[in-house]
Amino acid sequence: MARSPRLVGRVVRVLVCTEKKTFVTREVAEVPLTFEGIEGDRHAGHTRPADVRTPWYPKGTPIRNTRQLSLVSSEELAQVAETLGLPELFASWLGANLELVGIPRLTQLPPGSRVFFPGDAVLAVEGENDPCTGPGKVIESHHPGHEKLASRFVKAAFERRGLVAWVDRPGIIRAGDEVQVMLPKPVTYVLPVE
Amino acid sequence: MARSPRLVGRVVRVLVCTEKKTFVTREVAEVPLTFEGIEGDRHAGHTRPADVRTPWYPKGTPIRNTRQLSLVSSEELAQVAETLGLPELFASWLGANLELVGIPRLTQLPPGSRVFFPGDAVLAVEGENDPCTGPGKVIESHHPGHEKLASRFVKAAFERRGLVAWVDRPGIIRAGDEVQVMLPKPVTYVLPVE
Repeated sequence: MARSPRLVGRVVRVLVCTEKKTFVTREVAEVPLTFEGIEGDRHAGHTRPADVRTPWYPKGTPIRNTRQLSLVSSEELAQVAETLGLPELFASWLGANLELVGIPRLTQLPPGSRVFFPGDAVLAVEGENDPCTGPGKVIESHHPGHEKLASRFVKAAFERRGLVAWVDRPGIIRAGDEVQVMLPKPVTYVLPVE
Repeated sequence: MARSPRLVGRVVRVLVCTEKKTFVTREVAEVPLTFEGIEGDRHAGHTRPADVRTPWYPKGTPIRNTRQLSLVSSEELAQVAETLGLPELFASWLGANLELVGIPRLTQLPPGSRVFFPGDAVLAVEGENDPCTGPGKVIESHHPGHEKLASRFVKAAFERRGLVAWVDRPGIIRAGDEVQVMLPKPVTYVLPVE
């Protein structure tokens, strides 16, 4: 692996959710990261119970928490907003912890990519965060005039809803930070011919 | 993600290293896995100190241990042995924890792949285990007649030295177990044109 000089972006905002009743995040200036994720955040923890995201495990089974943080990009948020006919889509509505700008096609960064921050923190990418209706319902509550936003969100956000990641190295992430991305060695695995 | 019916193999042997002086592993019937890896194994732990494998971190920095287990395949070991002109190459010499058979191009399984075992254990693939001269020296010590095996191993084992992985779900792995592999959603990330 090597950091790509062409994959440099910036942290637009940092967000957390310390409540249990909602996944909607609120903006803060910075967050400290431990190996468990963002201290106090709803998704922090070494492990998490298996859920609809991991249907190959019995529900509730303790598994490694590779979904500690959620990342979205300003560019992709704008694309989804446009598709939905909305003036703007806020990272907080999607429960994101980080909004980044300048990394093209953020959602398509391959699993295993590393994201570096100046305050020592490094995230490792688990993969795409598949869109579900939860954020769609939040968006709908803010735009009651629009029809079926909850289900339209799922389609509009396909391959644009950002990533989930875990902490590879603890540190601090601050709004305004420069972000560098390192891609894993490209592999093409093709299933054997029957 | 979905398990591929065409990616099914078998555990040929299970190996551990509980010593500090060597990385060479020894065969056992089964191993219990916790979130730290194989209990008592040299490479177990939630974290590990950064080393030559992660030159982007200052040496010794505590980072997430995504290299808890090392996996090799019988087919690839045979290919490397043939390239080196040796009758056989043992998984133990490479410090492997698992030797699998039946998964084509094991070393090329993409990061994020999951490997399922019947005793609940599931591994998550960090990626290819780049060959270094360590195992080459062990091989050389067993074949003193052959020239420069240590450095020849590095070249011969390129893209055939297996994988490193971490525990996604604890459980037991036993010799003879059937193995199923689940590939992550394929992504092609191309660097932006300058």
